[in-house]
Amino acid sequence: MEKLIVIGGGAAGMTAASWARRLKPNMDIIVFEATRMVSHAPCGIPYYTEGLFNDENLFMTYTPEYFKEKRKIDVKINTRVVEVNLKDRNIVIFENLEKKKYEFDYLVLSMGARPKRIDSEGEKILYVHHPADATQIRNELWSSSRIAIIGGGILGIEMAEALQARGKKVILIHRGKYLLNRMLDEDMGKIVTEKVMSEVEVKLNESLVEIKNGGKLIITDKGKYEVDATVVAIGVEPNIDVVKGQIKIGETGAIWVDDHMRTSVPNVYAAGDAAESVNIITKKPDWIPFAPVANKMGFVAGNNIGGKEVVFPGVVGTVITKFKEYIIGKTGLTENEARRYGIKTVSAIVRHKTRARYYPGGKDIIVKLIAEENSMRIIGAQIIGEEEVLGRLNMLAAVVQKGFTAEELFFVETGYVPPVNRVWDVVTLAARKLYTGVGGE
Amino acid sequence: MEKLIVIGGGAAGMTAASWARRLKPNMDIIVFEATRMVSHAPCGIPYYTEGLFNDENLFMTYTPEYFKEKRKIDVKINTRVVEVNLKDRNIVIFENLEKKKYEFDYLVLSMGARPKRIDSEGEKILYVHHPADATQIRNELWSSSRIAIIGGGILGIEMAEALQARGKKVILIHRGKYLLNRMLDEDMGKIVTEKVMSEVEVKLNESLVEIKNGGKLIITDKGKYEVDATVVAIGVEPNIDVVKGQIKIGETGAIWVDDHMRTSVPNVYAAGDAAESVNIITKKPDWIPFAPVANKMGFVAGNNIGGKEVVFPGVVGTVITKFKEYIIGKTGLTENEARRYGIKTVSAIVRHKTRARYYPGGKDIIVKLIAEENSMRIIGAQIIGEEEVLGRLNMLAAVVQKGFTAEELFFVETGYVPPVNRVWDVVTLAARKLYTGVGGE
Repeated sequence: MEKLIVIGGGAAGMTAASWARRLKPNMDIIVFEATRMVSHAPCGIPYYTEGLFNDENLFMTYTPEYFKEKRKIDVKINTRVVEVNLKDRNIVIFENLEKKKYEFDYLVLSMGARPKRIDSEGEKILYVHHPADATQIRNELWSSSRIAIIGGGILGIEMAEALQARGKKVILIHRGKYLLNRMLDEDMGKIVTEKVMSEVEVKLNESLVEIKNGGKLIITDKGKYEVDATVVAIGVEPNIDVVKGQIKIGETGAIWVDDHMRTSVPNVYAAGDAAESVNIITKKPDWIPFAPVANKMGFVAGNNIGGKEVVFPGVVGTVITKFKEYIIGKTGLTENEARRYGIKTVSAIVRHKTRARYYPGGKDIIVKLIAEENSMRIIGAQIIGEEEVLGRLNMLAAVVQKGFTAEELFFVETGYVPPVNRVWDVVTLAARKLYTGVGGE
Repeated sequence: MEKLIVIGGGAAGMTAASWARRLKPNMDIIVFEATRMVSHAPCGIPYYTEGLFNDENLFMTYTPEYFKEKRKIDVKINTRVVEVNLKDRNIVIFENLEKKKYEFDYLVLSMGARPKRIDSEGEKILYVHHPADATQIRNELWSSSRIAIIGGGILGIEMAEALQARGKKVILIHRGKYLLNRMLDEDMGKIVTEKVMSEVEVKLNESLVEIKNGGKLIITDKGKYEVDATVVAIGVEPNIDVVKGQIKIGETGAIWVDDHMRTSVPNVYAAGDAAESVNIITKKPDWIPFAPVANKMGFVAGNNIGGKEVVFPGVVGTVITKFKEYIIGKTGLTENEARRYGIKTVSAIVRHKTRARYYPGGKDIIVKLIAEENSMRIIGAQIIGEEEVLGRLNMLAAVVQKGFTAEELFFVETGYVPPVNRVWDVVTLAARKLYTGVGGE
């Protein structure tokens, strides 16, 4: 009987296992997961920290038991894989304190990502990442009054919102000159920064030097801050130590894969945050460690292992986050990124409303569109708004992925009913501004 | 000096005039508008009837004065064009009770649509269409207690919501076997029908025979209803009597135009609800009398008159409406329509939620996708949901317009953050169900 081993029971791993199972009902499938949770995603931790829910099991879409019973997938939780021997085609775990070897025909590497760490160590230095640690971290944070957050990226501002909502005094220390500076261009990022600064204390252009007193004294290049605890949110990196030296690693530091999610080793696949992908716009390696990409990579790996050929088209880099009333989204390249790739761009920003002038409750929405100058193809978009951001972002992801021109985007037949839009949709207006150079309604 | 005359100051006409003005700063431009309002759209009338706003001027995006002062467009309101002489290239109006002739080099026909009428006449038989009549109609309705609505299409259910919210006893009489039966397939339409029936009295499969007592006695093929007033909402038709016999009329009954919005008469353009267009999927004539299409047609006509060539790509038929908490949208073909065009379809319906399981306030959302069986290209979509419907609908309009396959739609890199989505977006799941035949998350 064919044997499939999956290392890591997150979004990508469980999706890969599930699709392999569907296509090969008799395959022997084992998933090894280091924690007690599978089918989990860390995206919920800020909301758990805020206290919006209290049942940790909700982090899991499906439980280990579900996979065992319904999908005949043997899930071994609390089981860390300590060795992977790609040449000998086996992996090693500890079982009852003894090493145990498992052989495979197919392997999926879906160990995910892990937080980047700083040099300092301490009990009150907290990394927010795995749902399995969420309760412990929440307890630490709830018992603290003054909390520093290092890093003004997505996780940083989500944690700032959560902790401020819990009544904590938050100080957010950020190296960049505006928040979300890897996600947004400065024009859009400044709008978010102003909003965050109106709610919590933000230090911009300030770099961490070290953290002392076990997490209670922050020393930066500009000052010192005494706090009760520190959340470090300076980004993530692929969690691939277990296969380093045995497999091709891509430019981004994640495992190289082809468009079938095959690694450089036969019948060994990688999917999710452990795997690299190719940016559809630049055709260059890219790494987008978010759950929707992970799930789709898992789908591709699982289908191909199951014998049904499926090709992963690559990534555009869709990201969405929330701070208070603001939903903030980005897809494709920012102008900053485009510049790094030597792509000449034109852009347009339009500020509009989400409902007809006369319909109560209309909210602000701001859209930035970026086109490649010669072709006028849309290569990126950024949105800040208080409602109806998600669908527009998904629309623009489709537009970027398929290479619509500004003119084609302008002519998309958008919907209009006064309670949920203006006659001229904000995206249509932004496309028109790019296409004609003329703003206004 | 070149002379442009525009007949009808609605969305299409004012947009055409504005773009012609931009490109030809010295052109002599006159807009003749039969009512006192320009740049108006009837879509707000149900909300005005509900009492959500009281300032009639809010129906206008811009006032006649704005166009005169800012755009040097001579707007003649309350001026009905009584004759159009396409051969002699002039139009005739009444000015101070005398006929007056105006010559043109370019003409835009943007007279819009008008409600279809029934045979019966009476003071309490009301047609809801032009914002200029909104106050009079609202007064009639507010002074009535029991109101019949004839027609369970978009306007019918919007008026039902508005009048019920005003505390009226509403009876909605509909010929079809479910509501919105021209917009939705039966599977989706029934969901809306159930919702409407839980709020107001609905009579299905019931045809109007006549209305007596000036609008106070409804006689159908199944019964008689005594009411205080009747709203007739059985659809609209192009308002083109003034040019009939002088110009090519299309299959749909609207003015035939090419993809530059040129009619069969040189330098005479038509745009908006008066004009026909071509369906992008079927390549057949189609007529989509909604404001976003009208605006874009006006843009195309105005640019071409101004000397800048712009091509209108055709329509897919995007429609969106609201009943209470439900936002209801459709783009592309329904399965019913596809069948009429001899297109074989496959479809998938997915019911999902708008937020993560653990995030408070998640709402239901249901998406139906329709693909052409052989190519698996998405040719239609229907959505019912309580939030984030609009953007998803616009996304699907883009998808239909550009001919994405189900597989391509599945691989669109959608955004995910727990407060506004699930990891697997409902559209992604519906695409996956079409593409793989497998439902579930």
